[in-house]
Amino acid sequence: MTKNAFYAQSGGVTAVINASACGVIETARRHLDKIGKVYAGRNGIIGALTEDLIDTSQESPEAIAALRYTPSGAFGSCRFKLKSLEDNRREYERLIEVFKAHDIGYFFYNGGGDSADTCYKVSQLSETMGYPVQAIHVPKTVDNDLPITDNCPGFGSVAKYIAISTREASYDVRSMAKTSTKIFVIEVMGRHAGWIAAAGGLAADAQNDIPVVILFPEIEFDQDRFMARVKANVEKYDYCSVVVSEGAHWPDGKFLAEQGTRDAFGHAQLGGAAPVVANMIKDALGYKFHWAVADYMQRAARHIASKTDVDQAYAMGKAGVEMALAGENSIMPAIIRTSNSPYAWEVGKAPLSEVANVEKMMPAEYISEDGFGISDACREYLVPLIQGEDYPPYENGMPKYVTLKNAPVARKLADFKL
Amino acid sequence: MTKNAFYAQSGGVTAVINASACGVIETARRHLDKIGKVYAGRNGIIGALTEDLIDTSQESPEAIAALRYTPSGAFGSCRFKLKSLEDNRREYERLIEVFKAHDIGYFFYNGGGDSADTCYKVSQLSETMGYPVQAIHVPKTVDNDLPITDNCPGFGSVAKYIAISTREASYDVRSMAKTSTKIFVIEVMGRHAGWIAAAGGLAADAQNDIPVVILFPEIEFDQDRFMARVKANVEKYDYCSVVVSEGAHWPDGKFLAEQGTRDAFGHAQLGGAAPVVANMIKDALGYKFHWAVADYMQRAARHIASKTDVDQAYAMGKAGVEMALAGENSIMPAIIRTSNSPYAWEVGKAPLSEVANVEKMMPAEYISEDGFGISDACREYLVPLIQGEDYPPYENGMPKYVTLKNAPVARKLADFKL
Repeated sequence: MTKNAFYAQSGGVTAVINASACGVIETARRHLDKIGKVYAGRNGIIGALTEDLIDTSQESPEAIAALRYTPSGAFGSCRFKLKSLEDNRREYERLIEVFKAHDIGYFFYNGGGDSADTCYKVSQLSETMGYPVQAIHVPKTVDNDLPITDNCPGFGSVAKYIAISTREASYDVRSMAKTSTKIFVIEVMGRHAGWIAAAGGLAADAQNDIPVVILFPEIEFDQDRFMARVKANVEKYDYCSVVVSEGAHWPDGKFLAEQGTRDAFGHAQLGGAAPVVANMIKDALGYKFHWAVADYMQRAARHIASKTDVDQAYAMGKAGVEMALAGENSIMPAIIRTSNSPYAWEVGKAPLSEVANVEKMMPAEYISEDGFGISDACREYLVPLIQGEDYPPYENGMPKYVTLKNAPVARKLADFKL
Repeated sequence: MTKNAFYAQSGGVTAVINASACGVIETARRHLDKIGKVYAGRNGIIGALTEDLIDTSQESPEAIAALRYTPSGAFGSCRFKLKSLEDNRREYERLIEVFKAHDIGYFFYNGGGDSADTCYKVSQLSETMGYPVQAIHVPKTVDNDLPITDNCPGFGSVAKYIAISTREASYDVRSMAKTSTKIFVIEVMGRHAGWIAAAGGLAADAQNDIPVVILFPEIEFDQDRFMARVKANVEKYDYCSVVVSEGAHWPDGKFLAEQGTRDAFGHAQLGGAAPVVANMIKDALGYKFHWAVADYMQRAARHIASKTDVDQAYAMGKAGVEMALAGENSIMPAIIRTSNSPYAWEVGKAPLSEVANVEKMMPAEYISEDGFGISDACREYLVPLIQGEDYPPYENGMPKYVTLKNAPVARKLADFKL
């Protein structure tokens, strides 16, 4: 029996989430006997709620293939968390209604912890509502905070970007340190977990003796110890690089970066830890500084994506479809590391009941004892994830990313007010 | 007759200044009958003044070849402008003295406008002091502000980085705009001239209909007109990208970014226009924003350097040596554009008397009539400069940049106090 599939992108997009979309759509197209059309949600799950579906069958094979090397969310994403079933059963029921209207039997939701939760609930509710949908969560998040899976697609590429940018900027400040800039501060994403900040530690290695001080969200900021460390580095190396997480905070929990504004989920909107830290160093030690804030550049930097990450993102999309075809439900394909050296991984699976609402923190032993760097164990974990380059094609000096047609599917239901 | 050569890097470093060093050293090594050793100044011209010379002959051919793909200044650079001859004849005389002590007959100075001026004066003074030195200026500056040469090595790569980063981040914000971020602001370098900001305009093209608003240092900031433009873009596209130059300023000349600190030359130290602009939009229009500051990342981003830029940087170093061997003096090799389409260029030369202290501004006709974008003429100028990719080799997922031994040359003179 042929059913259509629904695919949606959720939350902050990444350099490789479209590679997962590519994996889903290309794999579905190879099983037209079981999966009719793949509909995508325009702007994520909101597209399903408002019955604003995109007919991906209108896209050429070349356009779908180009998703593999196009950053961001080709169908649009959203920050929209469905309320709990008790508080808003209406939204879940609407999803099922839209799925039913469009003969959708497969739900592929590509996101992080919140969307795993939604996916899980849809799967449960659809059974009880008598319209069973196979709900598969495809993992994605630069924050690398999903449980069970060894790592999350999206993280490897942002890690590679931050590691390279920190190394490159450190070479720069090293050149300038004699008479000018001695401090370079780069601010990176990671509100709760220091995974991305940790990647800055890869700037240094056996061939690159670069003094990098990392300010993790896991470690309470101690201004005196930090200044002592920066000073010691400048005295030894003549310069110092600092990687500060947007989630770095004072002992009382206040973010170094706090701006006072809040996002749709009520989270404090961050940005600005770098200038705070740079000026603090200037005031205490008098060193001339430069600072950068990588922001969206870090998670959109498909031009320097990790090949491992791209491969895994595609594999997760592909495995999601294959699991659905094998009858699986309420599940997430996961990356299982089978060997560190040489690095090897395989596709595993995680029940959504164990994924939803579980946040994987960085192990304490990944942070060096002094709290300012990464341990060998952390390096062993991170290095495989940034392996390989997977350059997009270029035209006229610019990467040739695809913008899809995103043709709408004719609506069948009445309007729904969000 | 064999003479040694002296090479120094000056001012802010770039992704390709070492490619010029590579061109100088590799070419000199092919003419050992005329050029003995190439000494480099440790930390630029300060190395000459303090007789802190580096013996580049200690470096293997492989290490010198690796300079071609290593960003920043491998010998160290400095921000140190020699005073005028009248005010500080002592420094110029010291330079000649050091050159004489080390049998240096060729002076290759790799920098921007200030170093062209120093180079010019050294050439003049060395004649009158009876120790003639052939002084050749090798052009370098991300600011693209040297006269005569069509463009400056270093600029093409930063332009490519900013164009790509703006495109990638625009794809990201476009994905998020429905429920979250609608505004992305990226701050770029360029204190006096909007060359780098203009490169942000390349994010959009016939295949990429991206709304990019540029705030140039050439155009006085008009808050009302700017807000109207941002609002119109968001109403049409649902999002808007803004590229703001660190040199963007109010009608009274005050920088949007002013931090109150000043660098060694007394220039205001900038950084922070992006958060200013982002918050201004939030206050006026209520749109959620993200902002990035590219800072050193933009000029160190050798991982995505323009091949045209790398080739030209190397060619300028090579041509400098060839001109010296041909007996030229007080001159700068220059890039002469001979055709736009297909792009073609050749090596020309510019007398230092016409280069020193002349700053090339961006032509007014390169800015669109509304002041917020680039004209077709500007695009025609910029596009060839970002052509081609020239990826460095990678090892373990990271670019394999070289750090030289930088072995010192034995000193022969008494100390000199700067």
